[in-house]
Amino acid sequence: MFELLMSVRDYECDMQAIVNNSVYMNYLEHARHEFLKSINIDFAALAQAGINLVVVRAEMDYKSPLKSGDHFTVGVELEKISKLRFAFNQVIKTTEGKLILEAKVIGTSINAKGRPEFPPELLNVFDLNT
Amino acid sequence: MFELLMSVRDYECDMQAIVNNSVYMNYLEHARHEFLKSINIDFAALAQAGINLVVVRAEMDYKSPLKSGDHFTVGVELEKISKLRFAFNQVIKTTEGKLILEAKVIGTSINAKGRPEFPPELLNVFDLNT
Amino acid sequence: MFELLMSVRDYECDMQAIVNNSVYMNYLEHARHEFLKSINIDFAALAQAGINLVVVRAEMDYKSPLKSGDHFTVGVELEKISKLRFAFNQVIKTTEGKLILEAKVIGTSINAKGRPEFPPELLNVFDLNT
Amino acid sequence: MFELLMSVRDYECDMQAIVNNSVYMNYLEHARHEFLKSINIDFAALAQAGINLVVVRAEMDYKSPLKSGDHFTVGVELEKISKLRFAFNQVIKTTEGKLILEAKVIGTSINAKGRPEFPPELLNVFDLNT
Repeated sequence: MFELLMSVRDYECDMQAIVNNSVYMNYLEHARHEFLKSINIDFAALAQAGINLVVVRAEMDYKSPLKSGDHFTVGVELEKISKLRFAFNQVIKTTEGKLILEAKVIGTSINAKGRPEFPPELLNVFDLNT
Repeated sequence: MFELLMSVRDYECDMQAIVNNSVYMNYLEHARHEFLKSINIDFAALAQAGINLVVVRAEMDYKSPLKSGDHFTVGVELEKISKLRFAFNQVIKTTEGKLILEAKVIGTSINAKGRPEFPPELLNVFDLNT
Repeated sequence: MFELLMSVRDYECDMQAIVNNSVYMNYLEHARHEFLKSINIDFAALAQAGINLVVVRAEMDYKSPLKSGDHFTVGVELEKISKLRFAFNQVIKTTEGKLILEAKVIGTSINAKGRPEFPPELLNVFDLNT
Repeated sequence: MFELLMSVRDYECDMQAIVNNSVYMNYLEHARHEFLKSINIDFAALAQAGINLVVVRAEMDYKSPLKSGDHFTVGVELEKISKLRFAFNQVIKTTEGKLILEAKVIGTSINAKGRPEFPPELLNVFDLNT
């Protein structure tokens, strides 16, 4: 499983003095993009080329909140769930091993005309995994 | 159904020139807090008093992206799903009626000791709805 | 002076239970873009056409913090300060009249080649003001 | 000079495909808080104890934008400018040495009653620097 080490930044915490719920989406996205880079897929270059990786569904289970000073890992595992959809199974844990959040983020890939088009590198990953 | 009218702010858009996925969480949270205010529950005052409304699970279905200049409504409907958990069923639509996002956000309420404690106003709502 | 009415959203507050310093930049930018729309300049359409309005300097004086529940106005006044630079003089006040922040945001406009190019609507405003 | 190594996260980029102006404030704040930690001042612990480090003025000169994939350092230098005010002189540069942003962020420290109160560690730094 791909893992990215991150730390809480104080501006990410809200008035409850814990990381705001929406910020986990940022963490998850950043880890997905770093994972994609690790298999030679550059989200930004794709977007500029008119191919957009988009999220169609996200499920997030908040287990325990992160707070100022916490260090954590964001795990990413890619799964093909249909011809046109893939899922990122993601887990956030503190470096001490405490479970923070589990998520399933389902995506697809569309071109400038709004039709499905997958970058070859992504198809290759699926072939390797099959 | 409670409805809040909002508009896309340009800084909420990312390099795909659409509202970033995480920002919908902000929209949903803001609409929930405004809904709570409408039934005399002040999230900030509660947090200061040591009672924290927290999200335990969020499910989001992204139907169509918002972009610069869009005006939209965020709907909020409260549902009691167990003795300790409630759900906010939320829908984002453009003012022209285009469906943008559907979400179910499940929450609970805990006190400073981390034990379940509900503000009376919230319990009243459930009683009224039953 | 152009004025935009806004409200604090709870997710914009940080662990000090006040609006985080960086969020004022969001407020200021949003008000500038709404001001520009009011004189028929669409920031997003310009960006897509390869003309980018960019900030080169920002000065911000924080007078008093905004907090949950506050309603405020963001004022915008445009001033030409040289052949290539314009300044937005901006003021944030609560609806009760309390001064929150004063800012001067200096910008320019560049095309896809990175060379100065101003949208005609912007030049017109300057002409009218002279 | 204290230096923190950071990387652009894609969600920090806006529709111009560069890091949004407000995000630099986040970078600067995060680097200041890490710097403070390095001299044993914990912003979050202080806030919880009722002592709030606050920004009273920020000056930012945007020299060149950061974009997706960029790695950069945020430098922090602390300067005492009066009995009650201190300045953070901050510089953002890419790891290749390109100047991105220069900032001066002026702050003070106040207690729960809104009166000036400095954490001893901060006073010690100033004494050492004198």
